[in-house]
Amino acid sequence: MADAERKLAHAATRIDFQTAPSRYRHWKLAVDGAVATLLMDVDEKGGLFEGYELKLNSYDLGVDIELADAFERIRFEHPEVRVVLLRSGKPRVFCAGANIRMLAGASHAHKVNFCKFTNETRNAIEDASAHSGLRTICVVNGSAAGGGYELALAADHIMLLDDGSSSVSLPELPLLAVLPGTGGLTRVTDKRKVRRDHADVFCTTEEGIKGKRAVDWRLVDEVVPATKLEDAVSARARALTAQSERPQEQRGIALPPLERRVDTNGREYKYLSVAFDRAARIVTLVLRGPDTPPPASVDEMVAQGAAFWPLALARELDDAILDIRLNEFDVATIMFKSVGEPRSVLAYDAFLDSNKAHWLAREVRLKWRRVLKRIDLTSRTLVALIEPGSCFSGTLAELVFAADRSYMLIGRADGDNRPPAAIMLGDVNMADDRLPMSNGLTRLATRFLDDRAAWSAACQAIGRELDAEKAQELGLVTFALDDIDWEDEIRLFLEERASFSADALTGMEANLRFGGPETMETKIFARLTAWQNWIFQRPNAVGEEGALRLYGTGRKPAFDKTRV
Amino acid sequence: MADAERKLAHAATRIDFQTAPSRYRHWKLAVDGAVATLLMDVDEKGGLFEGYELKLNSYDLGVDIELADAFERIRFEHPEVRVVLLRSGKPRVFCAGANIRMLAGASHAHKVNFCKFTNETRNAIEDASAHSGLRTICVVNGSAAGGGYELALAADHIMLLDDGSSSVSLPELPLLAVLPGTGGLTRVTDKRKVRRDHADVFCTTEEGIKGKRAVDWRLVDEVVPATKLEDAVSARARALTAQSERPQEQRGIALPPLERRVDTNGREYKYLSVAFDRAARIVTLVLRGPDTPPPASVDEMVAQGAAFWPLALARELDDAILDIRLNEFDVATIMFKSVGEPRSVLAYDAFLDSNKAHWLAREVRLKWRRVLKRIDLTSRTLVALIEPGSCFSGTLAELVFAADRSYMLIGRADGDNRPPAAIMLGDVNMADDRLPMSNGLTRLATRFLDDRAAWSAACQAIGRELDAEKAQELGLVTFALDDIDWEDEIRLFLEERASFSADALTGMEANLRFGGPETMETKIFARLTAWQNWIFQRPNAVGEEGALRLYGTGRKPAFDKTRV
Repeated sequence: MADAERKLAHAATRIDFQTAPSRYRHWKLAVDGAVATLLMDVDEKGGLFEGYELKLNSYDLGVDIELADAFERIRFEHPEVRVVLLRSGKPRVFCAGANIRMLAGASHAHKVNFCKFTNETRNAIEDASAHSGLRTICVVNGSAAGGGYELALAADHIMLLDDGSSSVSLPELPLLAVLPGTGGLTRVTDKRKVRRDHADVFCTTEEGIKGKRAVDWRLVDEVVPATKLEDAVSARARALTAQSERPQEQRGIALPPLERRVDTNGREYKYLSVAFDRAARIVTLVLRGPDTPPPASVDEMVAQGAAFWPLALARELDDAILDIRLNEFDVATIMFKSVGEPRSVLAYDAFLDSNKAHWLAREVRLKWRRVLKRIDLTSRTLVALIEPGSCFSGTLAELVFAADRSYMLIGRADGDNRPPAAIMLGDVNMADDRLPMSNGLTRLATRFLDDRAAWSAACQAIGRELDAEKAQELGLVTFALDDIDWEDEIRLFLEERASFSADALTGMEANLRFGGPETMETKIFARLTAWQNWIFQRPNAVGEEGALRLYGTGRKPAFDKTRV
Repeated sequence: MADAERKLAHAATRIDFQTAPSRYRHWKLAVDGAVATLLMDVDEKGGLFEGYELKLNSYDLGVDIELADAFERIRFEHPEVRVVLLRSGKPRVFCAGANIRMLAGASHAHKVNFCKFTNETRNAIEDASAHSGLRTICVVNGSAAGGGYELALAADHIMLLDDGSSSVSLPELPLLAVLPGTGGLTRVTDKRKVRRDHADVFCTTEEGIKGKRAVDWRLVDEVVPATKLEDAVSARARALTAQSERPQEQRGIALPPLERRVDTNGREYKYLSVAFDRAARIVTLVLRGPDTPPPASVDEMVAQGAAFWPLALARELDDAILDIRLNEFDVATIMFKSVGEPRSVLAYDAFLDSNKAHWLAREVRLKWRRVLKRIDLTSRTLVALIEPGSCFSGTLAELVFAADRSYMLIGRADGDNRPPAAIMLGDVNMADDRLPMSNGLTRLATRFLDDRAAWSAACQAIGRELDAEKAQELGLVTFALDDIDWEDEIRLFLEERASFSADALTGMEANLRFGGPETMETKIFARLTAWQNWIFQRPNAVGEEGALRLYGTGRKPAFDKTRV
């Protein structure tokens, strides 16, 4: 059940993360040479759930699914685009932020996961700038309030119309008694370096800030009078276009709808099977390795397009994880298994490494990076089972290291003629610039932190077939078990895990998974998000007399004044 | 009201943070040359509140107040001590952690502030090791469970008795559906570098881990059989003693009880006045500058002892802040004012800088560092008012930079013959090794982050008298106001602040105050604490059928299985 209180619109039974520009209800994507324009023009009647209207360019998860999709398409389908203009299609309003009626009626689990997805979408916009050279300019005409300003904060450059009324604001605290939940507080101080006392004033000023003060306080990059706006936008876009290293004269690849067979007990993709055991509160994901060797050339890779194995699997895995997050709140544990040939996976990694200067190889690697980060941030117990016939090597071995625990079978069961389980490491597991977590370290570096001996031993094991005992000795798996203990141990673990408090597991995993440094990205998901989750439960926000609940009724909230 | 549900024991009306070894009920402090032993022997009947017994060396805030006091006294009263042995005075149990009946009956605000204080105490133990050369060895005989193991984690070295039953554990999740709330998850991964999957197993294993596996997994540093324990402890203490740079043959200073006159509307210390305006939910702290010049020599400083102005004021300020935190939950805003001569404060800073190699000068500076960090972490709005006759310079200027906002009066009101308000900066405000925040940066560096121009301008202004307009130009204060606007602006601000949701302010301030890097210390107070605060409200823990509530009743908790 996606939501305890609301019904999905149009009698839908699940939230679907697949969309395409032809089906967008809220955004218009137009590409003109090196510049794409993403026009936000939210359809009031197009809410994902029943019971609210998306007025004033306010958004819900459905609007953000389209935004995320648009950026993915610009990356893959339009490699020639170097600058994205984020603009509003409505007069006098850029974006009013997350829809308040939606928030007020949503379950706690939906609110938290909605914020997580919108955060990931904004991080992906920044990732596109940092790693793909795809810059974003946000043109704020009218009011950019709350999540509207937070969307602007994800851009490289914010232009504010200087018309005496256009403004940026984070009115969540004074208006709704919650925090800006999509990175606003963190980006204001850590990205834009707004002075903390100015930030305090800004975040408690309901009407926001406009004009010169918005520039002086670093809230926006420039203010422009209406008569000069279009020229200024064009000039800024040209300047950023010139700085970008995105390819010229390359044609993109199409991202067709994922082929998937969905039924109540799971879903079958080309390279991924998803099976729910709802009684046990477990979902099993079986990833399939490549069925052909890597392409012979980058041209062949481009020709394969979305069918290129690493890209196809990454898209399928992303879709499956999002489906579990937002549609299956009762699942306690995600179990990863794989089937395939370990060396074949490494061969694809080597192909991507050899061609890392090619835009598509780069985008495929970056897609995996984002999908793996999404898995790290998924608030379910993650476990990897490494069995005979599996292919947890290279990129797929990251799932073992992302897991809270991993179990590897020693040898084979009687009568099993598949090859014994083996893990193989590749450069992709060790180099910081391939598949880092959001803390900036690889999963193995996070695993070993300052255990240099373990790190060196793992480096020396690159390219070797590591059986269960060797993998355990190297610290790559939690437990290597023989056939006699295997089923019982895993069954006991899964039963025990499902018996624990879901909330305490969420908190524990969010702490243990992110050892070592914190970055702006982890700060958003830890400090900010954890506080927001706390506030999203407090009566001052969500109680009968809470500000979020009473918004728009004309009644004043009654606050418990206790400071905690 | 200290606690919504429980009464303080012995008809006390406030929690008092002042104590002394002669009054300890739970710890025995014995000093023998360079080695001090702190024996934990909790008095079951000595709970701070009514309604629970502190069995098995479990603790409440009262026990931790004594522990914090003991470490302060070792620092100041016993500079010759180089190693502290943390030991249990009870057979077969080191410490059972925070008392569960106490937690189950405590208000949310008390729980959260209890955890904050115990975290600060453990951080102070690590600070003593890092900055004062005072090492701690924890000798675990029997069971160190939950907060008991977290106390051990604060030590430099953990020795575990190898008797087949002594163990370390973090059973909070399986037993109580909460997190280890005193830094355990963070220290396990980030300080002790326990592998994250081992940490996952450890934190979900109610009975904990003992013997060789505890060493292999880095949970303890060594296991020692009973027959060899005392020799091993002595040898380890000798080794750590030899590494310490604490002074030899120096006599300490006494820390007498603070002189304070307490009534219902405030408290009057020697250098600090505290006045509550409970209707307006404001407390005003007026700090008084020194009334004499700095001592002529370190000997004279030692002779002044606890009366030495910077030490006296730091102790008073610490006491006042803790009193507000734990006894005045309805206070929304802490307002800092000061009275004195700006140059006199700088003179004391210069004295401490000139004598920074002297143990007492070092300890006084470190005490200010801890007090200011405690203020940063205090979950109330902080505001500094800089008025004529004030002395916010050097160390005291840190209160201006710790504040969420500051207001400075331009010139003087009619008839006021005090000197106009001036701020003066000193080296103490700029150098990372003096008074850093818990993020490792000075408050000014956090304020300006990468604004190098602002930083350079502030550096150039060191030692100059900065009037309100100049201070605003330099970005040192939020608003410089003239006499006409002063009262109205501040009144409006305070009224508005008191009208906001207390919870949202807590979350906002916790985010805006800590721009820039995160350290293990900030991680404990942000990622870990924020998640724990969330869990401390969830029905799975504190509901009628929650695990924390039902613990000890023999009834099994009923969990909502939704993952959030």
